[in-house]
Amino acid sequence: MLTEQICADRDRKDPLAGLRADFDLPEGIVYLDGNSLGPQLRAVRPGIQAVLDQWRSDLIAGWFDRGWADLPVTVGAQLERIIGAEPGTVVACDSTSSNLFKVSEAALRMTSGDILTDYGNFPTDLYVLSEVARRHNRNLRIVAPEDVLATIRDGVGVVAVTQVDFKSGRLHDISVLTDAIHRVGGLMIADLAHSAGVMPIEVANVGVDLAVGCGYKYLNGGPGAPGYLYVSPRHVDQVLNPITGWFGHVDPFLFSTEYQPAAGVARMQVGTPHILSLVGLERALSVYQDIDLQAVRRKSVGLTTAFIELVDETVATQIEVITPRNPSHRGSHVSLRHPAAERLVSALAAQRVVVDHRPPDLARFGFSPLFNTYGEVWEAVKVLARVL
Amino acid sequence: MLTEQICADRDRKDPLAGLRADFDLPEGIVYLDGNSLGPQLRAVRPGIQAVLDQWRSDLIAGWFDRGWADLPVTVGAQLERIIGAEPGTVVACDSTSSNLFKVSEAALRMTSGDILTDYGNFPTDLYVLSEVARRHNRNLRIVAPEDVLATIRDGVGVVAVTQVDFKSGRLHDISVLTDAIHRVGGLMIADLAHSAGVMPIEVANVGVDLAVGCGYKYLNGGPGAPGYLYVSPRHVDQVLNPITGWFGHVDPFLFSTEYQPAAGVARMQVGTPHILSLVGLERALSVYQDIDLQAVRRKSVGLTTAFIELVDETVATQIEVITPRNPSHRGSHVSLRHPAAERLVSALAAQRVVVDHRPPDLARFGFSPLFNTYGEVWEAVKVLARVL
Repeated sequence: MLTEQICADRDRKDPLAGLRADFDLPEGIVYLDGNSLGPQLRAVRPGIQAVLDQWRSDLIAGWFDRGWADLPVTVGAQLERIIGAEPGTVVACDSTSSNLFKVSEAALRMTSGDILTDYGNFPTDLYVLSEVARRHNRNLRIVAPEDVLATIRDGVGVVAVTQVDFKSGRLHDISVLTDAIHRVGGLMIADLAHSAGVMPIEVANVGVDLAVGCGYKYLNGGPGAPGYLYVSPRHVDQVLNPITGWFGHVDPFLFSTEYQPAAGVARMQVGTPHILSLVGLERALSVYQDIDLQAVRRKSVGLTTAFIELVDETVATQIEVITPRNPSHRGSHVSLRHPAAERLVSALAAQRVVVDHRPPDLARFGFSPLFNTYGEVWEAVKVLARVL
Repeated sequence: MLTEQICADRDRKDPLAGLRADFDLPEGIVYLDGNSLGPQLRAVRPGIQAVLDQWRSDLIAGWFDRGWADLPVTVGAQLERIIGAEPGTVVACDSTSSNLFKVSEAALRMTSGDILTDYGNFPTDLYVLSEVARRHNRNLRIVAPEDVLATIRDGVGVVAVTQVDFKSGRLHDISVLTDAIHRVGGLMIADLAHSAGVMPIEVANVGVDLAVGCGYKYLNGGPGAPGYLYVSPRHVDQVLNPITGWFGHVDPFLFSTEYQPAAGVARMQVGTPHILSLVGLERALSVYQDIDLQAVRRKSVGLTTAFIELVDETVATQIEVITPRNPSHRGSHVSLRHPAAERLVSALAAQRVVVDHRPPDLARFGFSPLFNTYGEVWEAVKVLARVL
């Protein structure tokens, strides 16, 4: 049975414990919502101030002299390490929704058949896929998360899932799904919004065809940080961007009247990159430079396991754990079902434990292994028990 | 004949002269490239620092407690005054290219017929329109700028032009074009990237159906500031966003699996807004709060007229003014043609006069009436003569 002492011991032995000091966390808050908006790394503020200085002094010259124009690709390179992608396959730009639009449109031009997804996909994914399917006269098939694999058969052209379910925390085995859709000649699109940064993903080894993700959750890029997208080297020379903006052009500053896509993943850019927001993401990702993602995953599993154990020990009769209990089937958040979840989340916030309400009846506890501690897990369950 | 003394007098009498102090301009530079990247207003840095403070302390609560989630609409309201739009018709989000994709896709679903544009349109507009036309099996007709009006006839469904030509500085009469396309039952799309902020535009009075624009040129929002889009109240309840992301949903935080577009122009949003970049634009636009855009236009015409006069008086035999000499036919920049334009622009920069090269043979001088002076016009032509 876990005790406060055991939690403190685990924090002392945590090889990642030193990272918490890189975050500028407000005092006295247990922040279990880094999967919704990551907190601010100390590296971000000076990075933003530096780009304000550059803009002030260098003006237009900043685009080339300061590397602003290359930021989508250079930040993409930072992300490649985090998601296990090949060099030159990731670009950071636009929003996750826009990026999913681009890659799913591109996928439908490379394959025939339906799009298959599940009800655990994030709503924006369902909205975007539904409209993209409609525009191409394809069906969007939406099944239960556990039925995706069995539904992959001839006639399915694209599987598009979010690796970790934003509500339940359920983790898809994207390796198995990718193999299955490849066997019927289709393409795999993975949304990594709720998984990148807290586990090794290895999109290259898994064989994912296209992927998108979010910069402001576990990656801590700041409110509305740009998202990113991945295109496998198998497709990068064929993939067509439906939004043919000038930053996807082979030479935007030639101002040619004819569109000619850039070589590589750079062609998936659209308009002028949002530099202030992109620099926030760049600085935030610098924390990942020397991190072992296996160690991050071990701590993530440790935190969620400890949380579930403590909930079971203290409040099991009052609230239901809906996240898979097998750690290899979940991401880094745990959701609890309670009929008064919204009031519960407010009451926790009043006690300085910040989690998210997901309608109608879920309280979602997100554990970010880069800054959360076992002590915070202990504190959160203690407050939860009191509030219940 | 203009003299340095007359230029100094005009600056003394300039009713907008006080605005220059609102800009944090580097010393000793004549910056005639505010139409490419506007300089930094002093209000921007504290605004960005404030949002960094909010993110640090309020974390996820910032989205509602600090109004981040509403910024696309509140910044849109600032822009409505600048482009003469009705309340609730403008939203600030994404890039100009993405916004043109959205409104042109939407326009083709509201009308049949070809898209008509001109070779003076900005390349990204031509690229986006070309692909949108292809996807809808429509023709994109590209004519000379002066032939647009005569080409509007039955069979043209959409006219899409940039109001001020990024190269020549030629100003379309969008009122005349709008009337003409309306007479044949089509729709008018205006790109205001090179006109908003330096002249009254009055999209409502003109009757423009849809418009897009850029945040980082004359509007000074910072490198890659989000763009904006306008939808006339006549269309706002019918217009369909092709990129059905969650921020265009009537209630994103309900996390419904069914897409239902928001009321009004908010439905044209896609993903989570890029808050750092958007706050830069918000703070920059605050300078427009009490500005008379007629006075801005008068000064703009004064600056470009003085520049052309001085060029004629000093270097007319060495370089060609390609911008219309009739001030009512031009925007706020003047382009000069010279076979060695690229070297010329570099030589000017070495003398601290910053202008833009536009391939192959143009040197583009942008005059931003909010901070440029008649003294700078004098200085620029003096340096130009020396360099030539």
